[in-house]
Amino acid sequence: MAIKRAAIIGLGLLGGSIGLAVKEFLPGVTTTGFDIDPGVRVRAGLRGLVGEVCGTAEHAVADADLVIFCVPVGAIPAAAEQIRGSLPPHAIISDVGSSKQTVGEALRAALPGHTVIPAHPVAGTERSGPEAGFASLFQHRWCILTPDEDTPPDALADLQDFWEGIGARIEIMDAAHHDLVLAVTSHIPHLIAYTIVGTASDLEDVTRSEVIKYSAGGFRDFTRIAASDPTMWRDVFLHNRGAVLEMLGRFTEDLTAMQRAIRSSDGEALFDLFTRTRDIRNSIIEMGQDDARPDFGRADHTGQGTKEPS
Amino acid sequence: MAIKRAAIIGLGLLGGSIGLAVKEFLPGVTTTGFDIDPGVRVRAGLRGLVGEVCGTAEHAVADADLVIFCVPVGAIPAAAEQIRGSLPPHAIISDVGSSKQTVGEALRAALPGHTVIPAHPVAGTERSGPEAGFASLFQHRWCILTPDEDTPPDALADLQDFWEGIGARIEIMDAAHHDLVLAVTSHIPHLIAYTIVGTASDLEDVTRSEVIKYSAGGFRDFTRIAASDPTMWRDVFLHNRGAVLEMLGRFTEDLTAMQRAIRSSDGEALFDLFTRTRDIRNSIIEMGQDDARPDFGRADHTGQGTKEPS
Repeated sequence: MAIKRAAIIGLGLLGGSIGLAVKEFLPGVTTTGFDIDPGVRVRAGLRGLVGEVCGTAEHAVADADLVIFCVPVGAIPAAAEQIRGSLPPHAIISDVGSSKQTVGEALRAALPGHTVIPAHPVAGTERSGPEAGFASLFQHRWCILTPDEDTPPDALADLQDFWEGIGARIEIMDAAHHDLVLAVTSHIPHLIAYTIVGTASDLEDVTRSEVIKYSAGGFRDFTRIAASDPTMWRDVFLHNRGAVLEMLGRFTEDLTAMQRAIRSSDGEALFDLFTRTRDIRNSIIEMGQDDARPDFGRADHTGQGTKEPS
Repeated sequence: MAIKRAAIIGLGLLGGSIGLAVKEFLPGVTTTGFDIDPGVRVRAGLRGLVGEVCGTAEHAVADADLVIFCVPVGAIPAAAEQIRGSLPPHAIISDVGSSKQTVGEALRAALPGHTVIPAHPVAGTERSGPEAGFASLFQHRWCILTPDEDTPPDALADLQDFWEGIGARIEIMDAAHHDLVLAVTSHIPHLIAYTIVGTASDLEDVTRSEVIKYSAGGFRDFTRIAASDPTMWRDVFLHNRGAVLEMLGRFTEDLTAMQRAIRSSDGEALFDLFTRTRDIRNSIIEMGQDDARPDFGRADHTGQGTKEPS
């Protein structure tokens, strides 16, 4: 492992999980960390998310071989600005943001002369903050790296080793293509989930209490995603606007077609779509990207949480 | 328990789960069952879903105190027609369909003079067929009954006892209101999930393989719902058309507002929605309607299925 010392800027779900994963799977690597929120720094220290929680970002990166920004993508330019003066010349600069084109541009502009390799581990939960991370978050998950033509191959290999060391599989991708792929596999699903939860909360003829009581009909699945960190997701939509609007356009076209099928009682069109969509879940399960048990193996179907009827 | 003998017509996920739940929680109640598919009847018999799998629906209902139709809502009229001649006069007729107005009308038209009380247990998984059911499916879940002004109170109380006996909580509701509530808590979520999975499968610039690989970013959640039974869901949309179109209209209005916010970089509007939607998930968990663990407690976050990094 060429990387001996990693600095983690931002100690929430992702930053904390990287720190814990390094401690568990890469014991030879030292970690330092910083968070702009003093309260988060205290909580990160109590959980031992990194070897040393530093009082300033400059201090955290002073001897780093790798600096990973784990802050909302909109906060990256200011965070990069903070460390410019104290960054070792050889350090690799990376991040974990969900959009890659604007992040790469911002990091390269803020830290000229440094090796910038944007990264995106496609992993997470709906929780956020320094209590949310755990060491196994990246197991079986893909981490996408988006180098450009100037990226030194050695640095790319070092970053790849680091991520593989904490359990991820690596894919190298063009930043623009990453942003398009993630728009459909992550950003649009989140936008839809946030929206339907908002719609359901604001109805006059169906109460909020009814929405909650009967959520097991499907709605509750969407509320998980819609409980994700608001700042992080606001920034994702502002920073991947083009790809999100493109994919949203395609989704609404398809939804309009379904609306027309329902209005005209076109059962065949509905049945055709509903049949085609089954295969993709089977493929996701075969590829190890989801739990194979019904209902994600939720506790109430495995006997846990079962009350005895009177 | 006034109901001593229950006949279950249709032995898939719901019918099978009722049979297994009766066996476990109401051992004094005898069950018979029928499925129009001879292969399903054989598999239902092998799993012991009901006390007796009958070769005809007439035979199954011959001595029943309660008949529950557990078939797609579009198949209810024909199934009701089949048993008309052999139904005991005192038997309560019910079902488990996800829309209630058209079902109630169809059952009352097909079986005049009988006590019809439509029911909807808000519970299920994405699986279907006689292998999918399990006894604890209704634990902690709500079962909505939609009697009308002619329903005898005794019969309503008997049906309530039956459902409570297999673990459900009961709510009495007007059929039209049920259809509106379920449109938002179940039908629109399913329609959206089916649609986004269809959209993602059909892109030219993002491959199906990429969609599968990076599905952990949120998309995989939608594929679970989109793996639900196509026939059942086609029928739901055809039979609850008015309420579904009404709620779909509200959702698309809200989605258009989000689209505009993204296009105009209105971070405040995005942040405002994303903040409001967190509360409803907390309420759902407090009400015992979902797993409190992050990511539904999926196996890959609980240590199961974790591979050791090399």
